[in-house]
Amino acid sequence: MSLTAHKSKTFVHADLGALDQLLQNTAEDQRSKQFLRDTLGLTGMEVSVTAYPPNTSLPFFHKHKQNEELYIILKGKGQMQLDDELIEVQEGSVIRVLPDCSRNLRSGPDSEIVFVCIQARENSLEQCTAGDGIRLEGKFAG
Amino acid sequence: MSLTAHKSKTFVHADLGALDQLLQNTAEDQRSKQFLRDTLGLTGMEVSVTAYPPNTSLPFFHKHKQNEELYIILKGKGQMQLDDELIEVQEGSVIRVLPDCSRNLRSGPDSEIVFVCIQARENSLEQCTAGDGIRLEGKFAG
Repeated sequence: MSLTAHKSKTFVHADLGALDQLLQNTAEDQRSKQFLRDTLGLTGMEVSVTAYPPNTSLPFFHKHKQNEELYIILKGKGQMQLDDELIEVQEGSVIRVLPDCSRNLRSGPDSEIVFVCIQARENSLEQCTAGDGIRLEGKFAG
Repeated sequence: MSLTAHKSKTFVHADLGALDQLLQNTAEDQRSKQFLRDTLGLTGMEVSVTAYPPNTSLPFFHKHKQNEELYIILKGKGQMQLDDELIEVQEGSVIRVLPDCSRNLRSGPDSEIVFVCIQARENSLEQCTAGDGIRLEGKFAG
């Protein structure tokens, strides 16, 4: 799927469509994976939104050199193998994975799964939220 | 809501529960916002998962000093005011906001909204995906 982005000087906006329809645009039994960094011009993270049909995973495990990953399960359920631990994951599960951890995720035998995976460089965040934000006056136009 | 995390040496796992139930644990008309950095020990990003009842927003606008933000709308619909542009957002919308942009998000007059917001330091990502990942042999235990 190719995304069309609406670009302004200070933001970029695109639409993936309904999250439970992500598999509808793929051939039968194929995975749907949409990377956002290039489309949105992200510079502090890479983010992918993925949907698997039942009983599906990547064909390989992986770890990272620099980046921590956060998985957020949006729909369905499955399992993650994290080094020697196999854990159950489901809608609402959030899993931080350190770079040097062998990982893979699979959908359940009878369940699709939709998840977000975010990569960011370990120890790169210097401040956040109240420490990085500046409150402003402002109002909605309409 | 206080999250209980399952911590290993190489990963941390917690469960938010069903995403359309996030507002069930709050008092009437209150927002639900769950920050993940402290719970999961994230070091490259701060991530929040938020649910608003209809016609709700933060009472202030904000911008950032260092961090870009990515909003991913998971359910429902609403609007974002981004500097002088008002855009419609809905399930599947992804919006990158540069640090120096005045922003706020509100749910629709008749719609709840659930969204993820990720903060990461602008220009902190050095490499990602194939450039940062290392393929491994591995198999699911079961």
